[in-house]
Amino acid sequence: MNYPSKLLQESVEAISLLPGIGKKTALRLVLHLLREEKEEVIHIGETLIKLANEIVYCEKCHNISDTPLCEICSDKMRDQSIICVVENVKEVMAIENTQVFKGIYHVLGGLISPMEGIGPSHLEIQSLIQRVQEEHTKEVILALSATNEGDTTNFYIYKKLSPLNVKITLLSRGVSVGDELEYIDEVTLGRSILNRCDFSSTLKC
Amino acid sequence: MNYPSKLLQESVEAISLLPGIGKKTALRLVLHLLREEKEEVIHIGETLIKLANEIVYCEKCHNISDTPLCEICSDKMRDQSIICVVENVKEVMAIENTQVFKGIYHVLGGLISPMEGIGPSHLEIQSLIQRVQEEHTKEVILALSATNEGDTTNFYIYKKLSPLNVKITLLSRGVSVGDELEYIDEVTLGRSILNRCDFSSTLKC
Repeated sequence: MNYPSKLLQESVEAISLLPGIGKKTALRLVLHLLREEKEEVIHIGETLIKLANEIVYCEKCHNISDTPLCEICSDKMRDQSIICVVENVKEVMAIENTQVFKGIYHVLGGLISPMEGIGPSHLEIQSLIQRVQEEHTKEVILALSATNEGDTTNFYIYKKLSPLNVKITLLSRGVSVGDELEYIDEVTLGRSILNRCDFSSTLKC
Repeated sequence: MNYPSKLLQESVEAISLLPGIGKKTALRLVLHLLREEKEEVIHIGETLIKLANEIVYCEKCHNISDTPLCEICSDKMRDQSIICVVENVKEVMAIENTQVFKGIYHVLGGLISPMEGIGPSHLEIQSLIQRVQEEHTKEVILALSATNEGDTTNFYIYKKLSPLNVKITLLSRGVSVGDELEYIDEVTLGRSILNRCDFSSTLKC
């Protein structure tokens, strides 16, 4: 594309560094910004610079945080003996939204994926093992996505943790609430039959 | 949504100021940025601030520019007596891509739209009239979108320019190249019959 201005071109190229945003969308966004108040655009720019410079990760669970120890880890009301292992901060937010979990988290920062060149050493797995050893953790809940990468990571963590005296659990898998049986894939349906549970135990949910 | 960090929340809110980007997409973008090199994020931020502070509009045609007079307006090879009136910089780029037009532009900065509260005084219409008077323009090409707003703006400009001794033309309307007749809307098809042209005149295109 021929841009009428070098500054416009630079801005479009900078914005198109964001994932899922191509040159055309970036141009639309930049032209929108030019119609907005100058202060607003500067605010967005300054926030990004602040984000890059000042972001802090909790030294215990590696979640994004404002303080060296995040709100959840420093909450005395939470059960510090149950660690929920998640991929990223988005999963922490999703589980927090359920208001069901009262333990603490451990954010891996990704999943093992040989295809993308991500091995165990790229993730916060060693620090998880250390935490379990030092904090006398009773239970580790593996709350990773039910994908190949998630399963691989689950298995790796399971292997590493099994010598330690800790209960290792997995999110239950089965029919989603609201799903119609005829549309469910056969693997999920098969698993939900094998893992069928006592009806009376479901009444408390 | 409950964000684990105030800085994260601020960043998500800043990014979601962009059009078509909601809180969920903004969170995805911010988390992506956090995985990138710090320098890259700072670069995006600084480019936005530079954009807001240093953007220049051509004093003649109001297109985005690096210099007070844009490249096109200062190009001596271009026919300065033909002005093509467009809505925005995107349309300048689209027409430049055709490599067919050798005149100069006038960027209105929008279209008359009573629904959105945009009247003629919000657009660069007065400056267009002044240009036509001062520059002894021979032809004004109205190259606005074929929408209600475009038609209204065309008509308004036509009314304002008709007392002046200038030829006013409109982009031709008809069947797009590659269109199959059975799928064309009836207004376009009807117009293309009324505006049918001599076959021999099309052979030079």
